[in-house]
Amino acid sequence: MRIGFIGLGRMGVGMAGRLVDAGHTLAVYNRTAQRGEKLRERGAVLAETPEAAARGAEVVFTMLADDPAVEHVVFAADGILAAMDNNAVHVSASTISVSLARRLMAAHARAGQRYVSAPVFGRPDAAAAGRLFVVAGGPDDVVAYLQPLFEAIGQRTYRMSADPSNANLVKLSGNFMLFAAIEALAEAFALVRKAGVDVAAFKDLLTSSLFNAPVYHTYGDLLVSANDQNAGFTVPLALKDVRLAIAAAESLRVPMPVASLVHDAFVSAMARGYENRDQAVLGRVAAENAGIKV
Amino acid sequence: MRIGFIGLGRMGVGMAGRLVDAGHTLAVYNRTAQRGEKLRERGAVLAETPEAAARGAEVVFTMLADDPAVEHVVFAADGILAAMDNNAVHVSASTISVSLARRLMAAHARAGQRYVSAPVFGRPDAAAAGRLFVVAGGPDDVVAYLQPLFEAIGQRTYRMSADPSNANLVKLSGNFMLFAAIEALAEAFALVRKAGVDVAAFKDLLTSSLFNAPVYHTYGDLLVSANDQNAGFTVPLALKDVRLAIAAAESLRVPMPVASLVHDAFVSAMARGYENRDQAVLGRVAAENAGIKV
Amino acid sequence: MRIGFIGLGRMGVGMAGRLVDAGHTLAVYNRTAQRGEKLRERGAVLAETPEAAARGAEVVFTMLADDPAVEHVVFAADGILAAMDNNAVHVSASTISVSLARRLMAAHARAGQRYVSAPVFGRPDAAAAGRLFVVAGGPDDVVAYLQPLFEAIGQRTYRMSADPSNANLVKLSGNFMLFAAIEALAEAFALVRKAGVDVAAFKDLLTSSLFNAPVYHTYGDLLVSANDQNAGFTVPLALKDVRLAIAAAESLRVPMPVASLVHDAFVSAMARGYENRDQAVLGRVAAENAGIKV
Amino acid sequence: MRIGFIGLGRMGVGMAGRLVDAGHTLAVYNRTAQRGEKLRERGAVLAETPEAAARGAEVVFTMLADDPAVEHVVFAADGILAAMDNNAVHVSASTISVSLARRLMAAHARAGQRYVSAPVFGRPDAAAAGRLFVVAGGPDDVVAYLQPLFEAIGQRTYRMSADPSNANLVKLSGNFMLFAAIEALAEAFALVRKAGVDVAAFKDLLTSSLFNAPVYHTYGDLLVSANDQNAGFTVPLALKDVRLAIAAAESLRVPMPVASLVHDAFVSAMARGYENRDQAVLGRVAAENAGIKV
Repeated sequence: MRIGFIGLGRMGVGMAGRLVDAGHTLAVYNRTAQRGEKLRERGAVLAETPEAAARGAEVVFTMLADDPAVEHVVFAADGILAAMDNNAVHVSASTISVSLARRLMAAHARAGQRYVSAPVFGRPDAAAAGRLFVVAGGPDDVVAYLQPLFEAIGQRTYRMSADPSNANLVKLSGNFMLFAAIEALAEAFALVRKAGVDVAAFKDLLTSSLFNAPVYHTYGDLLVSANDQNAGFTVPLALKDVRLAIAAAESLRVPMPVASLVHDAFVSAMARGYENRDQAVLGRVAAENAGIKV
Repeated sequence: MRIGFIGLGRMGVGMAGRLVDAGHTLAVYNRTAQRGEKLRERGAVLAETPEAAARGAEVVFTMLADDPAVEHVVFAADGILAAMDNNAVHVSASTISVSLARRLMAAHARAGQRYVSAPVFGRPDAAAAGRLFVVAGGPDDVVAYLQPLFEAIGQRTYRMSADPSNANLVKLSGNFMLFAAIEALAEAFALVRKAGVDVAAFKDLLTSSLFNAPVYHTYGDLLVSANDQNAGFTVPLALKDVRLAIAAAESLRVPMPVASLVHDAFVSAMARGYENRDQAVLGRVAAENAGIKV
Repeated sequence: MRIGFIGLGRMGVGMAGRLVDAGHTLAVYNRTAQRGEKLRERGAVLAETPEAAARGAEVVFTMLADDPAVEHVVFAADGILAAMDNNAVHVSASTISVSLARRLMAAHARAGQRYVSAPVFGRPDAAAAGRLFVVAGGPDDVVAYLQPLFEAIGQRTYRMSADPSNANLVKLSGNFMLFAAIEALAEAFALVRKAGVDVAAFKDLLTSSLFNAPVYHTYGDLLVSANDQNAGFTVPLALKDVRLAIAAAESLRVPMPVASLVHDAFVSAMARGYENRDQAVLGRVAAENAGIKV
Repeated sequence: MRIGFIGLGRMGVGMAGRLVDAGHTLAVYNRTAQRGEKLRERGAVLAETPEAAARGAEVVFTMLADDPAVEHVVFAADGILAAMDNNAVHVSASTISVSLARRLMAAHARAGQRYVSAPVFGRPDAAAAGRLFVVAGGPDDVVAYLQPLFEAIGQRTYRMSADPSNANLVKLSGNFMLFAAIEALAEAFALVRKAGVDVAAFKDLLTSSLFNAPVYHTYGDLLVSANDQNAGFTVPLALKDVRLAIAAAESLRVPMPVASLVHDAFVSAMARGYENRDQAVLGRVAAENAGIKV
């Protein structure tokens, strides 16, 4: 297919590479153009504006940091909304708000275009390897049409809802589950650490029994070593996601006390100067609150 | 070995059975004696008092519901403290407070006896199958001496600390992790359910990726089906454990906001009349708070 | 002075009336025009658009429900920004977000106009009686220029900051204090009520000693009588204000756990169908969570 | 009357002095006897044991720090329970747990004695001036009998319940209200302070309007000046009281999320090394969590 791909951050560059390798024709755009150089070598064309990437494409992916970035790329004068063909599909893979997903759906419908939300779970290495988990929300026929593309970037596609914005809600809910697990580890580690228990042994106990899941292995190790400096997912991004989860929950009238608590912990992390740390910094915040130097 | 075993609830009866089957000589005691009948058929002797079970034993296990039950069995006039031989070992497998574990350690030391905390993770079926996880706290030589017994009841023994009470702290911390995971599921399920997302599909997404652990499979299923009527672990027991975790944390000066939040959710469950439900009732409480009828 | 006054809700109509009575020339606008009829009888002119109210005015007041209402009145094609004279002053008395206050300040400055935030504390009866408390934020000379108007509507003016948006922050912080006091009363009342203590006597104890302040008298009485049906300040407005306080706090990197907790309580009130109740509904939510029928 | 008075801390010494001055015959006991010297000069007799203070008294007051202190003074071999005359009254003025009050009531009833809970609100200076607020719980006739004594120590007596333990619950609930107000101030001050608003002006705004109550004047000033070094009420005492409030609430099945939150804040204060500070340290904890150096 002819694909426009906008947003070549650590996730986007991997996803775009998989689509190129699968034989599709890509026009890629990134605010800083040099991020696309390697993709150009693999056969992609570099577009100078989002508009140029979208012009003539059957499918346009966006993979950007947040709501304002997506809004700009879609609605600006040189944005994709004005440039996309009739019936072309915008696939929004970014972790954005439920309300923006609704606005995008409506705007593309008014323009005679189609819209699907397809946020992903996984990290940059999974993106580069085509091992993401794709959460697809949109009409059945459109998702079916996109399925080969999802197979290029992911190991599995989850159909959640005909309403695209529900895919965004599921993504935010999944990230909330992640933050909640890290916060629980953070508090439990502070407790056993202060009693003099070896936290590596405690982590081993958890992950060899009830809690034998990637989330506890990964963040258990990061908390054991207090390693939050190599940020896979920084505090401001995590704070944004929990804020969006709380906003979506408020709209649906769902109180989420653990989400509120994690929100405040991330805010305190920012206040303490940990803006550039990984979300595993929750372990450090809990330790400091317990008077532990880590 | 000659073993006294006190407490034949759903967990204790399985553990005692495994010890009998492993060839040990058991004198068992339970407040309601008929619970020991099947063990008698397998070769155990029924004792009429804790004292009688402890008399002459090399090792005395206690597996009881809470602190007051253990205190009574140990310190009462017909309790085990007065009956145990010099150098005999009390193995406390119950989920008790850190402070009671300390009192037990001190009292047995004063009496010339030995004390080990060995709380276990796992449910009644795992106990019957010898598949528990044993968390052993105590002096190395005593734990080594007990290792054959731990192997009879468990699939793995975790050495946590030479301080027995740290094993109790680890058990309480593990239960806290469990409650925190259920509460996170409860909030996320309320959110996606209210948006009209199929919660079974959401549970499947979680458990096939980052959250592929027994805790999420088990409680995910219970929350999908709102099945909290067949209580594997009732609300009062869960409330007791989170209270003990908070008390231990207070002593160590560790704030645990998620534990406090879960505590309040269990208290509200009690207030709503869900005293006999499983701890999975957290899903029902979160749903009700969101105006969902489940 | 020649004053435009936009927004004739229960607060605005009282404030505008005080300004008319003080001898000023008012052009008033409200979305539903009949709200201005009584003011017309007292000498005000009815304007058909915000633009018409602002045209030729030295000072334009806005007293509206929320951010979107203010944004529309200011920035719409028939809004006040385009209509106000050079050097005219926009006095924003609504409880709006800190970020919108910043946008208003910047937009008016670009247009050669002046901007002051002057949110108020007090209820409709205090507005009608000129007994409000005015929190004024803006340059000293502009606030001094407006002082006669503030004296017409309020019993006291508090100078908070030369930065107008800080007046909005103070207003949101004051409302947060109010919500926190109601929530504390709600929890304490649930506790003593369930023990069989007479809550009216408990309220009397509080308000005759340490807690002898209007907030505890007013909300104490409302909670004693479980009277949340005559809404002086409805749940959606309260929820909006606590959300704006949390948003401002997040920007400033200040965790506010009590605000988060109150936010979730108001969300649950909405979920339970109490959308049209007074903010005193926090008492009902706390009681229900404790299994009390009120 | 012949009165035994046990516990001559900063509160007790003032209360006992008022009783002496009112013409009663006092035998006073304190663990460190020199605390009673001044009372001796005013006419009191120094007792060497609690038993000696209670022997022959019509009324025995206890005013001690916590549950263990009261338990010891009552139940020890040289305690008051064994020494009190038939029909004599134990007036427990300490802030103790609801459950201990129940035990005391039952024990004195079995011994043919009477029991009243009469915890007090107010500080040492109010105690010395007879300006306390007395919360009396017990049978009407006994409270009426004690009324002259309550008038000697307090400015007002509140009758709460015929059940003595409800007076203790009310005292704990009042202290909870106090902690909640301080925590709300702490969060609001952190917010406005970080925005550059003058917190003294903010405090003035609050206390001249809705929040014009002693609690906000006193703790507002302490938080403005970050003065938590002259401890009127230390963190461990505050932590104890909020713990007892939560325990009483759990027994009654009342969730108290603000109490839980304050509990965790006090625990964190202890962890940060603020054990000897005043409860106003909540302001410091909130400020630190927001990255503010105070």
